[in-house]
Amino acid sequence: MAQRHPDSARLPAPPETTAGGVLAGHLGDHAAEFLRALRLRGEDEQAAIALLRGSARRISAALHTYEALVDPGWAETLRGELRWLSTLLAREHRYGGQLARLTAALHRLADGDAADPAAGRGPVAVGAARAGALLERQLTLARTRAHSATLQAFGSARFHAVADHVALLASELPLVPAAGGPAGPVLLPLAERAHQRLTEAAAALPLSAAGRAYNAHATHGALADPAAADQQDAPWHRVRAQARLCRYALEVVDPLLPGAPEANRLHAAWRALERHREAADAASAAATAARTPRITPATAYALGVLHADQRAEVEAARHAFGRIWQSVAVPFPEAVTAP
Amino acid sequence: MAQRHPDSARLPAPPETTAGGVLAGHLGDHAAEFLRALRLRGEDEQAAIALLRGSARRISAALHTYEALVDPGWAETLRGELRWLSTLLAREHRYGGQLARLTAALHRLADGDAADPAAGRGPVAVGAARAGALLERQLTLARTRAHSATLQAFGSARFHAVADHVALLASELPLVPAAGGPAGPVLLPLAERAHQRLTEAAAALPLSAAGRAYNAHATHGALADPAAADQQDAPWHRVRAQARLCRYALEVVDPLLPGAPEANRLHAAWRALERHREAADAASAAATAARTPRITPATAYALGVLHADQRAEVEAARHAFGRIWQSVAVPFPEAVTAP
Repeated sequence: MAQRHPDSARLPAPPETTAGGVLAGHLGDHAAEFLRALRLRGEDEQAAIALLRGSARRISAALHTYEALVDPGWAETLRGELRWLSTLLAREHRYGGQLARLTAALHRLADGDAADPAAGRGPVAVGAARAGALLERQLTLARTRAHSATLQAFGSARFHAVADHVALLASELPLVPAAGGPAGPVLLPLAERAHQRLTEAAAALPLSAAGRAYNAHATHGALADPAAADQQDAPWHRVRAQARLCRYALEVVDPLLPGAPEANRLHAAWRALERHREAADAASAAATAARTPRITPATAYALGVLHADQRAEVEAARHAFGRIWQSVAVPFPEAVTAP
Repeated sequence: MAQRHPDSARLPAPPETTAGGVLAGHLGDHAAEFLRALRLRGEDEQAAIALLRGSARRISAALHTYEALVDPGWAETLRGELRWLSTLLAREHRYGGQLARLTAALHRLADGDAADPAAGRGPVAVGAARAGALLERQLTLARTRAHSATLQAFGSARFHAVADHVALLASELPLVPAAGGPAGPVLLPLAERAHQRLTEAAAALPLSAAGRAYNAHATHGALADPAAADQQDAPWHRVRAQARLCRYALEVVDPLLPGAPEANRLHAAWRALERHREAADAASAAATAARTPRITPATAYALGVLHADQRAEVEAARHAFGRIWQSVAVPFPEAVTAP
């Protein structure tokens, strides 16, 4: 756990056995992480950004799940600002991740030769090398732009207002009277509702189809309107968002349910859906690159192979999620307390 | 069972309880099929060709597995001629199968829109439609050429010599003295050797990797030298050939082991490897089409997607074979006699 922020430690905290006390403690830990990340920026910018993203997300998620314990207008405003920040910080990370994923896939598809266009193994290998260069150019540009936007944001009044808000988070948390109740009976039902929302979102997924290996569902419509893939992926992305909220909700109640094995399984389920999103993003980036004017047919061909390869990864991630979900989808609180 | 050819019925047949008798009966049945197919040609050419192919393959396979019972030089000569005929007859069928498979895949990938280029759903859909038209043109041409070659062969002296040879097959079978032994003890060890050869070929396959769903092995090197795929597929094709020989070997001893359930499982294993070959062929046809000069990038892109899609089918077929093989790979004769 991170150290509490010194500012918040100076003010009287709510008793740690109350729901509000547990929530304030959790928010204080992540506010301290947030401030530590700001100080870290001069030393290691990438690590600092990753830390900022993680704490912004956790604070926002906790305020969402346990919203009933705080002033709703206040929580909604702060969450809106944290969402803006998280989205900004995530963008650069996502483009970097797409490039790394697509480069690795091209390497595998070209059997290690794509990295060396001079090898001259014929037009297909040249196409693969050119596709790699095109993706690198496009995604590096996008990442650089996202990075500039992040740096610009760090200098903005809006960002400084968020940072000030976070610094005072634990000490000035506008708790409602209900937050004075005992931690377990107040917090656990709210965590249970987060789990319930995840279960409902997952119930909308075609898990029985995804359970059959090589069902080819994720490539269905790969050559149709690009929006078709987004539409097909959307319910999975919704479950990913709920899984993240649920995971962070469980982190708040972790002191009440220490070492709940369910948290690990939930993390594995969420990881599968992260992989789903990453592969869907990468497939989409390959499809976008293929629409670049004046590319050669060999380059377009390689991008087509890459697109289908990443849609197969999307399908594999759904299959993996389905297998993990079988063991996660038990009622709460059994879900978090079962051995 | 087909009727015996009238010519062969007129000559004294070896006793049906001897190995030679059972083999001669089996060969006579398929020789009769072969001759029936020749008569059918005027009515239904496609059905006739399929029938000819099936009987030529079965006769050839029986002469291979049970070669020890017949004059070896004679068997080798006839098998060479039947191989020539089977290869010729298979070619047209393969191109037709490739076109049907690729058209269905394009339809699925384009979500039903590829069939209608006029729908004008953007450059990707147009690329899919053009890829479909290109494949149809190339594969129809290849099939037409194969068909002409088949028709020319039917009029050749070589084909007439094969047909004459087959007509006299059962009646003039040059059995060796060992063929006079009792059917079971002579034939079953030879069938067992066919099963053994299949088991040995399958032992060379990377079945443990194929058993993991979505292992991405079949797309490894999809953008490298086209020969890389052939090299990776070759051991699977060898097992397919052995599975077919084993399947036909069991048909000969079917009167001795009636209703062996293993034959069905062996058939399922062989079907998975047939699908493997069909998908590998289709992927290769898509890759070949992508090397057509002057195609548009959108067409090349669609062919790339199609290529990777069919390589994923190759992987799926290996996975399916692996699952079936677990239940087939038991020692012979348990393999054919187990309940």
